[in-house]
Amino acid sequence: MPNTHLKQLYRSEFGLMTDLYELTMAYGYWKNGMADRPAAFHLFYRKPPFGHDHLIVSGLELAADFLQSYRFSAEDVQYLGRLTGSNGKALFSESFLNYLQRMEFRCSVYAMPEGSVAFPHQPLLRVEGPLLQCQLIETVLLTLVNFSSLITTKSARIVQAAQGDSVLEFGMRRSQGIDGAITAARAAYVGGCHATSNVKAGQLYKIPVKGTHAHSWVMCFGDELEAFQRYADALPNNCIFLVDTYDTIEGVRNAIRAGQQLREAGHEMVGIRLDSGDLASLSIQARQLLDEAGFENAAIVASNELDEHSIRKLKEQGATISIWGAGTRLATASDQPALGGVYKLSAIQNEDGEWEDRIKLSEEAIKVSNPGRQQVFRRMSAGHPSGDVIQDVRDGVPGSRLWEYRTQDFRVLPEGDWEELLKPVFEGGKLVYDFPALQAVRQYSLAQQRLFAEKAAHPYPHGLSQSLYDRKMAMMEEVEA
Amino acid sequence: MPNTHLKQLYRSEFGLMTDLYELTMAYGYWKNGMADRPAAFHLFYRKPPFGHDHLIVSGLELAADFLQSYRFSAEDVQYLGRLTGSNGKALFSESFLNYLQRMEFRCSVYAMPEGSVAFPHQPLLRVEGPLLQCQLIETVLLTLVNFSSLITTKSARIVQAAQGDSVLEFGMRRSQGIDGAITAARAAYVGGCHATSNVKAGQLYKIPVKGTHAHSWVMCFGDELEAFQRYADALPNNCIFLVDTYDTIEGVRNAIRAGQQLREAGHEMVGIRLDSGDLASLSIQARQLLDEAGFENAAIVASNELDEHSIRKLKEQGATISIWGAGTRLATASDQPALGGVYKLSAIQNEDGEWEDRIKLSEEAIKVSNPGRQQVFRRMSAGHPSGDVIQDVRDGVPGSRLWEYRTQDFRVLPEGDWEELLKPVFEGGKLVYDFPALQAVRQYSLAQQRLFAEKAAHPYPHGLSQSLYDRKMAMMEEVEA
Repeated sequence: MPNTHLKQLYRSEFGLMTDLYELTMAYGYWKNGMADRPAAFHLFYRKPPFGHDHLIVSGLELAADFLQSYRFSAEDVQYLGRLTGSNGKALFSESFLNYLQRMEFRCSVYAMPEGSVAFPHQPLLRVEGPLLQCQLIETVLLTLVNFSSLITTKSARIVQAAQGDSVLEFGMRRSQGIDGAITAARAAYVGGCHATSNVKAGQLYKIPVKGTHAHSWVMCFGDELEAFQRYADALPNNCIFLVDTYDTIEGVRNAIRAGQQLREAGHEMVGIRLDSGDLASLSIQARQLLDEAGFENAAIVASNELDEHSIRKLKEQGATISIWGAGTRLATASDQPALGGVYKLSAIQNEDGEWEDRIKLSEEAIKVSNPGRQQVFRRMSAGHPSGDVIQDVRDGVPGSRLWEYRTQDFRVLPEGDWEELLKPVFEGGKLVYDFPALQAVRQYSLAQQRLFAEKAAHPYPHGLSQSLYDRKMAMMEEVEA
Repeated sequence: MPNTHLKQLYRSEFGLMTDLYELTMAYGYWKNGMADRPAAFHLFYRKPPFGHDHLIVSGLELAADFLQSYRFSAEDVQYLGRLTGSNGKALFSESFLNYLQRMEFRCSVYAMPEGSVAFPHQPLLRVEGPLLQCQLIETVLLTLVNFSSLITTKSARIVQAAQGDSVLEFGMRRSQGIDGAITAARAAYVGGCHATSNVKAGQLYKIPVKGTHAHSWVMCFGDELEAFQRYADALPNNCIFLVDTYDTIEGVRNAIRAGQQLREAGHEMVGIRLDSGDLASLSIQARQLLDEAGFENAAIVASNELDEHSIRKLKEQGATISIWGAGTRLATASDQPALGGVYKLSAIQNEDGEWEDRIKLSEEAIKVSNPGRQQVFRRMSAGHPSGDVIQDVRDGVPGSRLWEYRTQDFRVLPEGDWEELLKPVFEGGKLVYDFPALQAVRQYSLAQQRLFAEKAAHPYPHGLSQSLYDRKMAMMEEVEA
């Protein structure tokens, strides 16, 4: 069972959580007698973020949670009934609105588990079911999967740059509203962060929470040493002193004084935090002062616009930082704040109940969509992934020939076994997937990252199976003709 | 009365919607007998986004809505009771958790109305009240005001670049979760956007909603012309045909054919939409084809990674686009995806009930905070703003001398009347502000934008009053000594 954080968080129904054009198309399908026509859509991305070669997927549980409670309330359809078109008359008929209000979710969804490594053009989700319903859920699936996956991928990059040090997610104050912050904390944890400052996310997802004090604490007291002492009196088991309110090195000295008194009282200072200035040089000086005073185990936490680039640079400069707080740049993925995931129709049944393929053409070859109903097969050779192919589900297990996006040519994969990456999540509207706890998702994500980090020296082969390539070429000729 | 969209949207209590360090500090204040000590904090920003010289503020109603329902549930304090510190023992005492659960919001809040123009260092909000409560609400106030104000400012820039054309907000699929999308739609409307694609935001805030169809609609049918005809049959009063599924110019021709049939049936095509390719050249060709066919009034809508920069460039290239759809780059403010707003303690009462000023020092002069309890005064000279000063509320109406951040020097403002920008919103925890409808907020924002657009040729004077400058210098000397 997924935990139902959306239900806990949100009171209203969610039918209207969509772009208007999904509803006008839904009305068009319904009026044209096509509402129940079986269709297949795929959610995928074209370009990996941050110059990475892959994405780490997340957000599936949020999406499933949403789909489980997808319906229109009486208020919702009343609102829709008041919308008008260019001639001032109602956009939607009353019988359509009645249909919407009675509608129950009946789609099937196949998806990559959260924490999976996904390459460009691979479906992260395949949605099959009544055309009208597949269409209506487009926008919110994109909202939930795009942002989560983006932040999980960013988090993984930051955690990798930290080379085994702890990374804390601190981004709430710069997030896009309340569930932006909660989603960012969740996604960052899946990517490998060790804890969050966001207490609500901690409560909802059992993510470890961390935090001690801000500058305002120090400013409430007569001087900095008094502030540290008073903090230590109140929270002797949570002492990381923020040392840069007035002068950082003097702050370290005051932290040491407070730490000595704390030790006399039978407790141990956890560490200090640096939040401004030259973090490399300040951390080296702080480390020396702490060590000389017998605080060899005190951690040095750093924050202030950190991401994988600044962490790597600080490490090169010899910074003696052992815990990294990543806020704004993690929670907003500031160097690329959106993942361009899309959701495309790729097959629809005709009136005789036969599946017909569909593609969208484009002047840019990379934007021509793949037809059919797709599964992603990963070749595992001696325990390691050796290549991924997208294959139509009607074509069974793929052969060894792979048409690669990178080279625009075929290659042959080594011997191995195929794993199917898309797992059934909903069947006919019924949830059939057992969501693991977020701690297990994080472990899976870290294992996936290790598996592909070993491969990083060579471009990983991914593309289309021979049969899907043939289908696509035939479709393109047909549509262009 | 604020509308209560947060209450509608969210089921749980919100006490835990904060960074852990706010709660550990709260505990520290409480243990030290300082929980009820009156304090003053200000929320402000230091650097305007996007190279602009000011910010357009929004998010106040969301923040007020949050504060009105700020409390801890039994579940919340149980969760906090399970948190442990470095020695494995509880972080918080039971009597503190009881205190939290019984706590009622008692702060006073003074704020700039949504749509106001705010310059760097000016408080957007001043919060006064029990130290513990002022501290706890820090994170979420920043979350709600930072993101909203960022998007409102971005929206204003895009609307200005569109020079009177309609701008539609389309960003939901790339937003940070569900209320990220709703907040972006709301903030974009305040900035001047004319409508949104987000139906939920339309329902909650009475924002006009717009949308017609996507590529998937076209791909469901045998050919593009049939797709347009079937759409026109179903929604004759909402016909903007998306023409780039296969070939854009052929798409325009099909739209014209469908438009002619629609006209015969007594309806009028609203327009076409371009979503890829060279939008300038395609719009010029499309305009010519539409005009030649007698569709001089048909609109040309464009979308695809639009923002103020691309709109300005397209206009220079002679694009004949009349409606602009802005998605990803608006809803994520992609060129600067976070506003660095902060929230700083600036005064606290001593044990004798006297206010004492506080500042935070920094190696960077721009980061030294302003002390006291601040109001922003705007000089209005012959109906136009001539300068803004920040003044301590204890010093009454400011004189004409202004210490300017830009020049780091004094200047004298012209004759005029003072307006106070911060208005009372909460007094002792009670809401005293009457929130206008969002339509009125948008009008106010547009009026403010016009007022300051006229000033754009000269840098607008803003800074500290003589008396606040003197207070700050005295404080700096005192703290440094």
